[in-house]
Amino acid sequence: MVIKKSEDFSEWYNEIVELAELTDKRYPIKGMNVWRPYGWKVMRFIDTFIREELDRTDHDEVCFPLLIPETEFKKEKEHIKGFDAEVYWVTHAGLNQLDIPLCLRPTSETAMYPIFSLWVRSHSDLPLKTYQLVNTFRYETKQTRAFIRVREIHFFESHTCHVDEADAQEQVEEDFVILERIMKHICLPYFLLKRTDWDKFPGAFYTVGVDAPLLEGRSLQLGSIHHYRENFSRPFEIKYEGLNGEMKYCHQTTFGMSERLVGCVVAFHGDDKGLVLPPDIAPYQVVIVPILAKGKVEEVSAEAKKLRDELADAGIRVHLDDKDERPGSKFYNWEIRGVPLRLELGGRDIAEGKVSYAVRVDGSKGTFLRSSAVADVKGWLDKIMHEMRANAQSRLASSVETISSLESPPKKILRFGWCGEEECGRQIEQRTELKLLGTPFIKEDFHGQCVVCGKDAGVVAYAARAM
Amino acid sequence: MVIKKSEDFSEWYNEIVELAELTDKRYPIKGMNVWRPYGWKVMRFIDTFIREELDRTDHDEVCFPLLIPETEFKKEKEHIKGFDAEVYWVTHAGLNQLDIPLCLRPTSETAMYPIFSLWVRSHSDLPLKTYQLVNTFRYETKQTRAFIRVREIHFFESHTCHVDEADAQEQVEEDFVILERIMKHICLPYFLLKRTDWDKFPGAFYTVGVDAPLLEGRSLQLGSIHHYRENFSRPFEIKYEGLNGEMKYCHQTTFGMSERLVGCVVAFHGDDKGLVLPPDIAPYQVVIVPILAKGKVEEVSAEAKKLRDELADAGIRVHLDDKDERPGSKFYNWEIRGVPLRLELGGRDIAEGKVSYAVRVDGSKGTFLRSSAVADVKGWLDKIMHEMRANAQSRLASSVETISSLESPPKKILRFGWCGEEECGRQIEQRTELKLLGTPFIKEDFHGQCVVCGKDAGVVAYAARAM
Repeated sequence: MVIKKSEDFSEWYNEIVELAELTDKRYPIKGMNVWRPYGWKVMRFIDTFIREELDRTDHDEVCFPLLIPETEFKKEKEHIKGFDAEVYWVTHAGLNQLDIPLCLRPTSETAMYPIFSLWVRSHSDLPLKTYQLVNTFRYETKQTRAFIRVREIHFFESHTCHVDEADAQEQVEEDFVILERIMKHICLPYFLLKRTDWDKFPGAFYTVGVDAPLLEGRSLQLGSIHHYRENFSRPFEIKYEGLNGEMKYCHQTTFGMSERLVGCVVAFHGDDKGLVLPPDIAPYQVVIVPILAKGKVEEVSAEAKKLRDELADAGIRVHLDDKDERPGSKFYNWEIRGVPLRLELGGRDIAEGKVSYAVRVDGSKGTFLRSSAVADVKGWLDKIMHEMRANAQSRLASSVETISSLESPPKKILRFGWCGEEECGRQIEQRTELKLLGTPFIKEDFHGQCVVCGKDAGVVAYAARAM
Repeated sequence: MVIKKSEDFSEWYNEIVELAELTDKRYPIKGMNVWRPYGWKVMRFIDTFIREELDRTDHDEVCFPLLIPETEFKKEKEHIKGFDAEVYWVTHAGLNQLDIPLCLRPTSETAMYPIFSLWVRSHSDLPLKTYQLVNTFRYETKQTRAFIRVREIHFFESHTCHVDEADAQEQVEEDFVILERIMKHICLPYFLLKRTDWDKFPGAFYTVGVDAPLLEGRSLQLGSIHHYRENFSRPFEIKYEGLNGEMKYCHQTTFGMSERLVGCVVAFHGDDKGLVLPPDIAPYQVVIVPILAKGKVEEVSAEAKKLRDELADAGIRVHLDDKDERPGSKFYNWEIRGVPLRLELGGRDIAEGKVSYAVRVDGSKGTFLRSSAVADVKGWLDKIMHEMRANAQSRLASSVETISSLESPPKKILRFGWCGEEECGRQIEQRTELKLLGTPFIKEDFHGQCVVCGKDAGVVAYAARAM
């Protein structure tokens, strides 16, 4: 690690994702990167938690085709407008030109909804709650960045259909709980901000963005939750027979988050030494480095293996690094990869019945008794999870500054009064060169004036340098 | 179920995959189907076993991009020839025409190997053992069939690099063990047949096909294992520095199997009543149907829930069907979906301290004691796995008939002497209108003459009506 996070965040990020072997950016298409084994494991742990939560709340996992006929894709006008410049088109197959071009899903509304219109017939088919974990494709024209702005994007999308607006609204609220529980495993903080009308998802009635705070007033959108009302069910004819025989259109919602979660883990938790992974998503929660002094090699090696086996048997993801390399160089490499807990075992540790440890997140070091190793390691992993969650909450709070004027704003996420009018909103964006993220979905107590027009602020709003 | 498997296999298959809610074929692109929740669960159980085996044998899971630039795709000439008529091409992105067309992976050699050439540097980087579980795309021109011949194909592919031919050969042999262990969970029988030279995978040194026997002399290729020698490592420059400093090309292998495994489970195990799922891959291993006679509704409902909870706590995948429907109609529906074990619980069962059961695979029925329900259900699920494996082996044996002449061959998979010459091989195919599947990879004892030329047969060969 040559570059420091605090000195050049952008360069630091680009370097660390490859040094930690999360990704390989040398694939010959820009913005389409290779998931290396270590990075893919992190993503898969996150996917596992996502599945756990969606299954728990009675969502059914499905898998819809990647390709969408242009004819279906164009059925919802607002939607196509939003994606027109961003989709990849398959025009040829084998030696033939296709009659109807097929686009690679940028998201799956237009793939799923023609089929939903067949699945939903009556009141008793609702709510229909589905999700899928797939890759999606967007032809990014902005500069790409691993996990954060890529052209092939790993993500989950849940899609639900409901009898009415209120039931769909309840789904949105369930999504908040699902989100909260997923984030507990990843130790990331976030804001839930209702996007402005000119920034909502194409076709949505409203959009709630999930934004994480990063260094120096940056924010990273991790996902979004949408209430569609009948905006898609009408063009796609997703309707059901009500109790009195009348036909009604469904109300729909979606919720999605992408591999940006991995990018955010890197960007939020990482430090000058490299990644810092929360134990719940770390491929290795513990690494054991034997300290092999002369005359002690066999004894230490045997004891290190024994310790590895004990921890593995207890369900801990542990790796014994017994390569022929200096311990210092091993420490350095596992710090880059963010392993939460390092154990060292040398001749003296064994003689004293102890194990030395080093905690990645705060650098603390010490020893515990060899005899209670399993319990102590479990205790440490729990403690690290708690510490990382507490860090996240306190950094969330300190990332924001409430301002009453747009003059020389601090390098923070800004919180301020807004009258709610588009004109003032756009002025805020122009004058600060920040993105107006929206207004808190869960109302915050606020009394003040709009920072632009000075009228009584209807709402409090947030703005940030969006990554 | 109107159509009988024995009367019209093809129609029966097409109907049952939708009746059992494995797939929805109404997606508006032919050969690209929707995985419904029930079908996707079966696929995901199979994927879990695949991952288990590949992880156990130190393969690293990766995920490479879907799109492959035409320039890379064309690097290996034999390979492109084999796929030329079958790939989908992305030619446009957003509003632009792309400089270099991108194809959707038909398989990932040409996506992975440019990166492997960066990963493999020295002897110590080998063997490189990787795999991925992704969807792949082939523009099928033949008639499509759910899971068996589709245009978006869910599959796994392992790709390995080795120091030399012998080490790659050992990998092929490890693949046989992996295959065997995966198939134990799915209870499918198979032949390992080395394909003829004119039928091997484009670019392979040799190909071993994994073929399952179906009704009436049909065979279904479930997967294949390839030894590539240096056929890809040369054009993609995957080389390493040997111990004496000389540069050497790697030897490579691949192994892949697709969602045809699901198709084969349907086709092989299914019967006139519907699917028959092996317990290891059944979304529900057990379904409980309460028999609600008047005056007993509450008592029976409560006891059924208690039984459900006991089984679930013991790790059994159990579903309590407490919908308001006749038991007979429930029996019918769960038979279609192939649930291995059905439990019935009525007032009399409770009074007698018993549970009634029905085994899907052989239709056997009986009762066991309520007090030992968990142990009995576990015992039944084990017994069903054993029975389905034994069935598979005996049907494998009876699916084949050894013949000494091509005159009026039986409706079986044919086994016969072959001199090994291409000319005779092609004649066999023409005269029987069957596919020459190849010769057993593990040599079989055989003495006889070539069925065409009458010379002493060098090898024994197999032919079948390939689906």
